[in-house]
Amino acid sequence: MNQDIPQIGFENSEFFHRTERAQRLMKKVDLDALLLTTEPEVRYFSGFQTAFWLSPTRPWFLIVPREGKPIAVIPEIGGTRMGETWLDDIVMWPAPRPNDEGITELTATIKRLKKESGVIGVPMGTESHIRMPFSDFKKLKENIRDIQLIDASPLIQELRKIKSEAEISKIRYICQLVSKGFLGLHKIASLGDTEKEIFRKFRIDLLARGADEVPYLVGGSGPNGPKEVIGMPSNRTLKQGDMLMMDTGAVFDGYFSDFDRNFCFGSVEESVAEAYAIVYRATDAGLKAARPGITAEGLWKAMADVLSEYTSSKNAVGRLGHGLGMQLTEWPSNMKGDNTLMQPGMVMTLEPCIEFADGRIMVHEENIVIRDGEPEMLSIRAPSEIPLIY
Amino acid sequence: MNQDIPQIGFENSEFFHRTERAQRLMKKVDLDALLLTTEPEVRYFSGFQTAFWLSPTRPWFLIVPREGKPIAVIPEIGGTRMGETWLDDIVMWPAPRPNDEGITELTATIKRLKKESGVIGVPMGTESHIRMPFSDFKKLKENIRDIQLIDASPLIQELRKIKSEAEISKIRYICQLVSKGFLGLHKIASLGDTEKEIFRKFRIDLLARGADEVPYLVGGSGPNGPKEVIGMPSNRTLKQGDMLMMDTGAVFDGYFSDFDRNFCFGSVEESVAEAYAIVYRATDAGLKAARPGITAEGLWKAMADVLSEYTSSKNAVGRLGHGLGMQLTEWPSNMKGDNTLMQPGMVMTLEPCIEFADGRIMVHEENIVIRDGEPEMLSIRAPSEIPLIY
Repeated sequence: MNQDIPQIGFENSEFFHRTERAQRLMKKVDLDALLLTTEPEVRYFSGFQTAFWLSPTRPWFLIVPREGKPIAVIPEIGGTRMGETWLDDIVMWPAPRPNDEGITELTATIKRLKKESGVIGVPMGTESHIRMPFSDFKKLKENIRDIQLIDASPLIQELRKIKSEAEISKIRYICQLVSKGFLGLHKIASLGDTEKEIFRKFRIDLLARGADEVPYLVGGSGPNGPKEVIGMPSNRTLKQGDMLMMDTGAVFDGYFSDFDRNFCFGSVEESVAEAYAIVYRATDAGLKAARPGITAEGLWKAMADVLSEYTSSKNAVGRLGHGLGMQLTEWPSNMKGDNTLMQPGMVMTLEPCIEFADGRIMVHEENIVIRDGEPEMLSIRAPSEIPLIY
Repeated sequence: MNQDIPQIGFENSEFFHRTERAQRLMKKVDLDALLLTTEPEVRYFSGFQTAFWLSPTRPWFLIVPREGKPIAVIPEIGGTRMGETWLDDIVMWPAPRPNDEGITELTATIKRLKKESGVIGVPMGTESHIRMPFSDFKKLKENIRDIQLIDASPLIQELRKIKSEAEISKIRYICQLVSKGFLGLHKIASLGDTEKEIFRKFRIDLLARGADEVPYLVGGSGPNGPKEVIGMPSNRTLKQGDMLMMDTGAVFDGYFSDFDRNFCFGSVEESVAEAYAIVYRATDAGLKAARPGITAEGLWKAMADVLSEYTSSKNAVGRLGHGLGMQLTEWPSNMKGDNTLMQPGMVMTLEPCIEFADGRIMVHEENIVIRDGEPEMLSIRAPSEIPLIY
């Protein structure tokens, strides 16, 4: 595996192609523009990257017109940084300005767009939200009453679900890095550590290996494993026979890994070994099924069929993986009813999961990219038998 | 300074008091309930804490009724965890279920609330957003057409701006920890390091000292300092005479610190020393003014008056600090027009800033809590002269 550090950021051509693809899709549904308010969408089209989105004070807007480069309508504090992107047209207001948080500038910018259909797309569908005060969104709608706003979520999802090789190289890098961290966990964790201590040491280890951040690190432990998959580390001490699950979303240059690993402390309960084996086999089935042309439901079914031999647990009917990229989870969902077709360049997680031993959870997760033929593993496959830590 | 590790989580009485205070305010404006969709609000009333909010797939809802405990309407994946909070009434749906992402359950829960005013508050004002697909919010509004939804942002802000001693102890802990990290930076950073290397080492150092996470770490460097305050670290090498600014939001048990420090490498330019001194004096003026009864505008003016002796830069008229707590930035804003009165228990940042030397930025920031009389410093005050790193 090539672990050269990928280039930071992207060539301008990447943003040009993203915009061009968006504009092709926009023309199909006859949109004059896209109006975007959330971090991944603004970054996708501009390259604008800052942790400052953590502050809820200021909204940020990006407009993708029918033709030409995107237009940023942003708080002045971001002007220098946005000025370094490929964008030329950057409209600013002196935020915070609570009685008019950019609505005047946003209205004016929308009004000067070339009108053909009089329709603007805003992501309003599944997995989206509008990151601005609702009262401001109402004001905006009144200001541009002649313009129709329709849901652009399907368009954004269509666009972002296929990753470029430059995007994949960043995801591969962070997945490989985290895999190596997991493979070395026995060197930093021991029987008698608390969950909090192990999580802290692992987070530090991933940063030292080159991760920019580890925003997502959840899991838990117990005899036979944890009772939930989204737990935060506690002061619980790892004891003989315990199983520890750690699920990690680490970031390199704005792109996520998302997979977990399981470990036993001192010894392995038979029920754990059995659950581990069945979920491992389900992952095998997922890897075998992950080919262009299968649906996300098909991927789910390949894994669920293996799981249901073992269990009637409701976990087998939930979501067993999802898209991955600029966000910890993206569409599609490997579940019943999701008919999204796998295509080369889609980065997916395979995440089979069962309940066993009275409410304990065994989940495996791998990150892959769909290729012509076999998928490419981005994570290093989990060991076929649960590793031990002493 | 007491650096005993504060208790993780809160006593149930904390949530009871928060809810009681909310219900008192709700009665004043005659609300039947609050409907909340964002992480800090759901956590504020329930104690529910997980990094899983990073996934945009699932919305989470919390209803605070006019009387009694809050009601959670959440995806099944959070059931175990929410079940460990003080809440009794937890309604779940098997998410993801994109064609009905909890709207049926949310509608039914709202319909069974005791109706008195027929009005429900939803945060819709400044600094808020509604974290659910807009199309689902429209569906919900149609389902409960007889109920009026009004903006509850003022109520939420009134409530959250005053911190309990238990909340303050967590903020104090993380502020002291980060202060000590900054005081030791010269031991881990050197002339010739890149920004990225220094930021990485600092992040690791803070985790090793006991921070749970360091989600916010921005800044930059250059001769005379950085050109922006929300920059991400680059591969730029720190050279003789450079100034480095690092602004840090670290987290302990869900509570943030937010302050920066400045460092010179090898030697100090005269313009930098001068800018540092003036901004330090502005902080002095802010600390002197930070008493119960002064407005956020008053705090701003105390600092801006000092800055404007030195500069006519527009920075002196922007925001010079803000509230702090469960989020990196909270209300109020130390700026013209913000008439929020300082009250004991409010945690604030003082953040004077100037532009100097052709667009370079000097920003100081301290974290304080308003007390009867003098404010309590939460951060350890920055040194009065800019520290050197070799």
